[in-house]
Amino acid sequence: MEVKDITNRDVDFAKWYTDVCRKADLVDYSSVKGSMIIRPLGYAIWEEIQKNMDRMFKETGHENVQMPMFIPESLLNVEKEHVKGFAPEVAWVTYGGQEKLEERMCVRPTSEVLFCDHYKKIINTYRDLPILYNQWCTIVRWEKTTRPFLRSREILWQEGHTMHRTAEEAREETLRMFNVYKTFQENYLALPVITGRKTEKEKFAGAEETYTLEAMMYNGYALQNGTSHYFGNHFAKAFGIKFTDSDNTLKTPYQTSWGVSTRMIGAIIMTHGDDHGLVLPPMIAPFKVIIIPIGDVATELESLKNTLKENNITFKVDESNKTPGFKFAEAEVKGYPIRIELGKRDLENNHVTLVRRDTLEKIIVTFDEIVPRVKELLVMIQNDMFERAKTRRDSMIYDAKTYDELKEIATTKDGGFTKINWCGDVACENKIKDDFGIKSRCLIEDEEVTGPCTVCGRKAKTRLYIGRQY
Amino acid sequence: MEVKDITNRDVDFAKWYTDVCRKADLVDYSSVKGSMIIRPLGYAIWEEIQKNMDRMFKETGHENVQMPMFIPESLLNVEKEHVKGFAPEVAWVTYGGQEKLEERMCVRPTSEVLFCDHYKKIINTYRDLPILYNQWCTIVRWEKTTRPFLRSREILWQEGHTMHRTAEEAREETLRMFNVYKTFQENYLALPVITGRKTEKEKFAGAEETYTLEAMMYNGYALQNGTSHYFGNHFAKAFGIKFTDSDNTLKTPYQTSWGVSTRMIGAIIMTHGDDHGLVLPPMIAPFKVIIIPIGDVATELESLKNTLKENNITFKVDESNKTPGFKFAEAEVKGYPIRIELGKRDLENNHVTLVRRDTLEKIIVTFDEIVPRVKELLVMIQNDMFERAKTRRDSMIYDAKTYDELKEIATTKDGGFTKINWCGDVACENKIKDDFGIKSRCLIEDEEVTGPCTVCGRKAKTRLYIGRQY
Repeated sequence: MEVKDITNRDVDFAKWYTDVCRKADLVDYSSVKGSMIIRPLGYAIWEEIQKNMDRMFKETGHENVQMPMFIPESLLNVEKEHVKGFAPEVAWVTYGGQEKLEERMCVRPTSEVLFCDHYKKIINTYRDLPILYNQWCTIVRWEKTTRPFLRSREILWQEGHTMHRTAEEAREETLRMFNVYKTFQENYLALPVITGRKTEKEKFAGAEETYTLEAMMYNGYALQNGTSHYFGNHFAKAFGIKFTDSDNTLKTPYQTSWGVSTRMIGAIIMTHGDDHGLVLPPMIAPFKVIIIPIGDVATELESLKNTLKENNITFKVDESNKTPGFKFAEAEVKGYPIRIELGKRDLENNHVTLVRRDTLEKIIVTFDEIVPRVKELLVMIQNDMFERAKTRRDSMIYDAKTYDELKEIATTKDGGFTKINWCGDVACENKIKDDFGIKSRCLIEDEEVTGPCTVCGRKAKTRLYIGRQY
Repeated sequence: MEVKDITNRDVDFAKWYTDVCRKADLVDYSSVKGSMIIRPLGYAIWEEIQKNMDRMFKETGHENVQMPMFIPESLLNVEKEHVKGFAPEVAWVTYGGQEKLEERMCVRPTSEVLFCDHYKKIINTYRDLPILYNQWCTIVRWEKTTRPFLRSREILWQEGHTMHRTAEEAREETLRMFNVYKTFQENYLALPVITGRKTEKEKFAGAEETYTLEAMMYNGYALQNGTSHYFGNHFAKAFGIKFTDSDNTLKTPYQTSWGVSTRMIGAIIMTHGDDHGLVLPPMIAPFKVIIIPIGDVATELESLKNTLKENNITFKVDESNKTPGFKFAEAEVKGYPIRIELGKRDLENNHVTLVRRDTLEKIIVTFDEIVPRVKELLVMIQNDMFERAKTRRDSMIYDAKTYDELKEIATTKDGGFTKINWCGDVACENKIKDDFGIKSRCLIEDEEVTGPCTVCGRKAKTRLYIGRQY
């Protein structure tokens, strides 16, 4: 597979995406329909994500646990809304070895019911609360059409599940973790996410409120990139979870859950990638630097490697016997934030070339300047990537006051988010969906509503983002 | 559940084990038959294991990947010995949502075939070798009787899978990773493991050679605590994996795999635990220290916490409203290596009590001496735990020159390992199994063979460890 043959991003974005996934060695297809193989670079990005998020979860008082992978059918059935949402897309285990199971089990599509089953046993008094658990695991949803990182039968993710004494505390937790997600996606992934509450129609099966992070891809499509749910006490009631409060009365606790997945890697690719391949934000790049030695530069290479190590800057060296041109292209397709070209002849003039992956700008420095400049550049690249993505996103946010304006936007623009005024009626959401195939993204709660509902013309209650989605 | 009610270890070791698992909050049972819930302390120990082993894997050049969780039946069937070994104990997925699958899939019981399926696509020339992959994941084996950490339907583990240009390189890798396991289990888990090659009868389904780490539990039973396999090129041939070597001829590569699991947590419990509960080796304890404040010691507590943080010593503080006696018992059951009792009255005399969990010895120090003494003690506890386990293990290793001696040992001692002389015939292994229910552990390759086979009296070829097992 030639590194260079990446489809032009503006010609066929879907093909560009799969080209980058394959040619950057992020994933491979397997003989297992609907499941992907995550290759070393893809998995190393996931490890960086895990490491940083896990630290943020622990700093906010959460502990990791591991629940079973299987859910007996009767347990899945306990909460009605929830089972309706998930039963159509689960994988059923019916045999163990040669024996047919008495009760079939699904592979967890999410673990609310497993956590509730456990909470019922371990929650007795208000002193047991809050319980702040998280789990890193694989879930399964039997999707028909799949796409690497975006939609897969197997999904690597984390799911936080917490229980609280009061509704207020649970709501605070829902928003706290929602903000942790936002901070992480902005500061580490350089994704300028749009955040807000989902409409009733779009919220999670069984939740009272769902908060969502909506990232906008290069083509203007939305990628729902994480959600945080407030459950009230629906599940707790369905499972009979109760605690004795300090006033000696029996009460039902309040619950949250929140999750993000390897889908975030898809968001990184489709927000920052270009026609040369992957572009990784420095804060999440497993290797910040790729060194390409040209000619015999063994002494300088050794010295540079040591200095980078001392400065905790992760790097790879390409010492294969390919041509420099091939190595440059490969370094670009794999998205290393900075390429250091360590050339014999350049070094004789005390020149080293640094190349920024995001802009492909070349910067000539002396040998001693390498590390300080790399440090500066890593910060600069991270900021610039965020700002560029934000500028691009903002240029694709539209505003429709009337249905004619909405129609004009929906029929002339393939992507982008549109702000509308909304009466709050699901009929209006359905009409937009039916007419244009566009769904609600999230409520805009910090903008004043002026004018009637963009769809039906009745009094508008709120502002709303709508947009096509993955 | 009262912390104190742990069954006496010498009265009922099996019950003692489950008591410790439950009362130290390591695991809980679930509504999912055969699957356990790993609670925060249990999972934190697993995270420490992962963190340290993963670093050792990466230092030896390995990369992490993630293969699918499912194996289509036809793929599992490719290697004959392998499928014979695993088919009786896999979980079969037969439905996705409402639809019956055209081909059923099992949840991976191990991933050799998935890796081979991938290798076939990515290996082309000798430049692609070696491939050194590892995967952290959950596997499923449909066991009838289960026990926390030791035998469970779902197992958290890592599995290394590597491909090499020559048989020699693959053999080196098999032993390299075997030694990484040994180093880790001795230095981190304080387990004096007995290591060696498995007999033909006991080796892994499909392997040419299996190397095993056999830990001896308090009751003298063996726990197979990790294996490293050399596969030759059986799988590679079955899967048609070939590469062009530097001489331009097509060759078949050589393969290894190696794995350890949460079973190691079972080994820690059953090697080091006592009638007060869990005893964690400092190198793997998620929290090295538990601080128990008694009375109003807010200022000293704050100062101690800061000093511990500065010295990278992890700790927990028990500020619950339970009695000191209850807190001491709980700190013991949970196995924190060192307990610091920070008492108001003691502090007035500049006294602080440190308690070693392994010996329960009390050590009186001044406030300023706490951190330097804790550092010393952590090293000392780690060493002492290893040495005590080794002494105990050695006291339960027997030697049988004749079948009568073997019979005497097998019928009077419940546990322990016995060294025998062996002719190499599986019939002798089977006889020991049939007569006493004891299996081969591993070959002893560094001891000279003197005398005939302990079982049949013919010429002995090797020395062999045998012993009862979990």
